Amino acid sequence: MPDFSIGVDLGGTNLRIAAVSREGQLLEKVTLEANAARGPDPVINEMCSAIQRINSQYERDGKFLGAGIGIPGIIDLETGTIRKSANLPRFSDYPVRAEIERRLGAKVFLDNDANFAALGEKWLGAGRSVANMAILTLGTGIGGGIVLNEKIFHGMNGMSGEFGHVPISKEGPPCGCGSYGCAEQYASATAIMRMAREAITAGSAALARAADSGAEFNAEVVYKLAMQGDKDAQNIFRKFGNALGFLLAGLVNTLNLDMFVIGGGVSSAWDAFAPSMFEELRSRSLVYAATDPGDLPPERTHGKTIIAKALLGSDAGLYGAARVPTVEG
Amino acid sequence: MPDFSIGVDLGGTNLRIAAVSREGQLLEKVTLEANAARGPDPVINEMCSAIQRINSQYERDGKFLGAGIGIPGIIDLETGTIRKSANLPRFSDYPVRAEIERRLGAKVFLDNDANFAALGEKWLGAGRSVANMAILTLGTGIGGGIVLNEKIFHGMNGMSGEFGHVPISKEGPPCGCGSYGCAEQYASATAIMRMAREAITAGSAALARAADSGAEFNAEVVYKLAMQGDKDAQNIFRKFGNALGFLLAGLVNTLNLDMFVIGGGVSSAWDAFAPSMFEELRSRSLVYAATDPGDLPPERTHGKTIIAKALLGSDAGLYGAARVPTVEG
Repeated sequence: MPDFSIGVDLGGTNLRIAAVSREGQLLEKVTLEANAARGPDPVINEMCSAIQRINSQYERDGKFLGAGIGIPGIIDLETGTIRKSANLPRFSDYPVRAEIERRLGAKVFLDNDANFAALGEKWLGAGRSVANMAILTLGTGIGGGIVLNEKIFHGMNGMSGEFGHVPISKEGPPCGCGSYGCAEQYASATAIMRMAREAITAGSAALARAADSGAEFNAEVVYKLAMQGDKDAQNIFRKFGNALGFLLAGLVNTLNLDMFVIGGGVSSAWDAFAPSMFEELRSRSLVYAATDPGDLPPERTHGKTIIAKALLGSDAGLYGAARVPTVEG
Repeated sequence: MPDFSIGVDLGGTNLRIAAVSREGQLLEKVTLEANAARGPDPVINEMCSAIQRINSQYERDGKFLGAGIGIPGIIDLETGTIRKSANLPRFSDYPVRAEIERRLGAKVFLDNDANFAALGEKWLGAGRSVANMAILTLGTGIGGGIVLNEKIFHGMNGMSGEFGHVPISKEGPPCGCGSYGCAEQYASATAIMRMAREAITAGSAALARAADSGAEFNAEVVYKLAMQGDKDAQNIFRKFGNALGFLLAGLVNTLNLDMFVIGGGVSSAWDAFAPSMFEELRSRSLVYAATDPGDLPPERTHGKTIIAKALLGSDAGLYGAARVPTVEG
């Protein structure tokens, strides 16, 4: 019955595909192994076979509107190729968009996964009620995307929203981008683990026990220790929140958007970092201070700057990818 | 003959009015004393009398399209009032836009002066060839404005582009906005004079002589000393350039715009601060590094990030104010 589109999240490990109706209803979701180290051709072949299998089912009832393909990396929007992706190194110089379009015989939209996550949260998640918003996805690094007037804002050549590489310290740890003191060196899973190692070196007993326990030692473990009251773990999330608030203060003063959505795996540690994030943001941003919603209920926050937790988890990018063919197609 | 609009720059001291043709030709420019301490009514009366005098002359030949009024402060776009302006304190709660519209019987656009400067440079200045750009006006503080698709980007409620209050240091001098370590504490005329005083305290002979000479001691004097080879003055502009480059790195990574225009009175010290500005920007921004125009000639810089000196000086805001009625009216 419903017209539908396809959203794809192509990571280095997993390849996820969703069919979504024009109205935003999830029709089907499949997860395949990407095994991207094989190189682009077999991956693209399997992706397109799966899409065609799904399409053949739903095309009985509705029209296929096109597909959006989200990639973790920097996309060349003009050529439809991947400029740089740590997870898909063998895809450089491969005409990703053209090859998928040829196989599907349909319009395909290639974009950065964080841009699609922004659009997904705008469409069906935390940003449903606003026209202009940005997302910060907190994971190994910080991804970012901006949505203006319900469309992804790409900047000049698709590289806008690199919030993780906004410099926030003159000194600071070196970053994979070639700079140092970038925001993602202070507010990401990587940053949490660096600070945890530093705390262990400085004598933190609980963190040292967790690291030596034999179980995986990751940001979630540090978060659980913080919620159990461990001062050293709490201190790590306090610094994390301060850094995120510092970054947000600059973004709010620059963009004055209706909403900033905090997503990505590490956003589930919200309770541990949000207090210091808001404290820093309030004291650092005159625009936020003038538009602070305080304790206003959601229906009365028109004209206020909302900092919200993402609602769609790892599906945000799939929904956003499926959204593009319905608004741009 | 030509249709025309009116641009106004309403400062605390001067009130400047320009008639500009739809094609961007300056027809007439007048400067009056604003004497804003008198309060809004006499100022608005004189402004509107002057506009009507100008209009009566040019309406013989063309149509009056409307007026744009630039204000140094934070504007409430919905109500057409001034939220906060250090130079026009008595104008708070006065219905500026409605009162001017009533007197002129025409559509009036009220906006922040830096937003109009951005639009002016876009229309007739450094940004003529691009669709998306931002301006940073370096003066007592740092003003800012963003133009997307040839229109001012206001954000949610007209407060976007507060680049001067992007925090760039965890510590640092307190700022008038209530925060500290804001960009304008490091890259403005105010910052130059603070650093000059610090250098004098630290024993800078040439700066001390200039300060004690009886002539006015200001940022221009420090600039001249730098260009004459004084190491302490050069060091001030090196730090100024580093701070501006640090700020720009974050903005380029966030917005990926075609062009950032550096304007305001202090931009005339370009030769003294540009080298360290570009050095910092190149090392701090992966987006700039990927889009650095290097020594390419202007006609080959498509897809590159251009950092350009403003071309219209203090007239940029007048032109931008006159532009709005022709695109929005």
